[in-house]
Amino acid sequence: MPREGTFLIKQKAFIKVYLLSQIEKGRSYGLQLQDDLYAAFRSFGLEPNHSEIYRSLHELTEEGYLTRRKVRKEGAKYQEIAVYTIKDPEKAKAYKAQAKMDLERGVGLLQKALHDNFW
Amino acid sequence: MPREGTFLIKQKAFIKVYLLSQIEKGRSYGLQLQDDLYAAFRSFGLEPNHSEIYRSLHELTEEGYLTRRKVRKEGAKYQEIAVYTIKDPEKAKAYKAQAKMDLERGVGLLQKALHDNFW
Repeated sequence: MPREGTFLIKQKAFIKVYLLSQIEKGRSYGLQLQDDLYAAFRSFGLEPNHSEIYRSLHELTEEGYLTRRKVRKEGAKYQEIAVYTIKDPEKAKAYKAQAKMDLERGVGLLQKALHDNFW
Repeated sequence: MPREGTFLIKQKAFIKVYLLSQIEKGRSYGLQLQDDLYAAFRSFGLEPNHSEIYRSLHELTEEGYLTRRKVRKEGAKYQEIAVYTIKDPEKAKAYKAQAKMDLERGVGLLQKALHDNFW
């Protein structure tokens, strides 16, 4: 196929769109977000891995989608944890709009393959 | 995700299932098969590349799905071209059954992401 990455949405983009949605909804802690992704993917036998989620959060922060702050962990004097919020809502919206097109195109592509090969 | 390759069907498997179906239907020349794949994928803006198709045909032959023979090209005294036929129909059927499950699972996964993130 012509360009790498145009066949079906990449796993990382798939994770990122979930992260942006959950953070938009007010989920902000890494562990919360990991739990959300586990819950969402469990029914497909997928288990997003810890480092993939954190790498995606890191990239979204580097790329200007998210703001990352450190807050003191409740009850712990010296332990800090990272919380994430949307930095640029328009940018997040644009990322999601692109992902939505990729997801819809993917559904069409897979359904066409089912039709062409199994009907 | 736990195992590489479990997220969505790989491009190569996608090409192989089309190749097996077309060869089952009696298409047998590399160029015919390439035309078939071009036609099938054009509507998605995908253009399977020549070497990917030939590599897939080679692998399917190595793995015992296909038989490859050389035939004299019509009108050409010394030029031979390769034709492919199904070697083991049961094996081809099993490959396609697995691919069908992967395609269906992929549709479900993408539709769930659309539902979770955009509804």
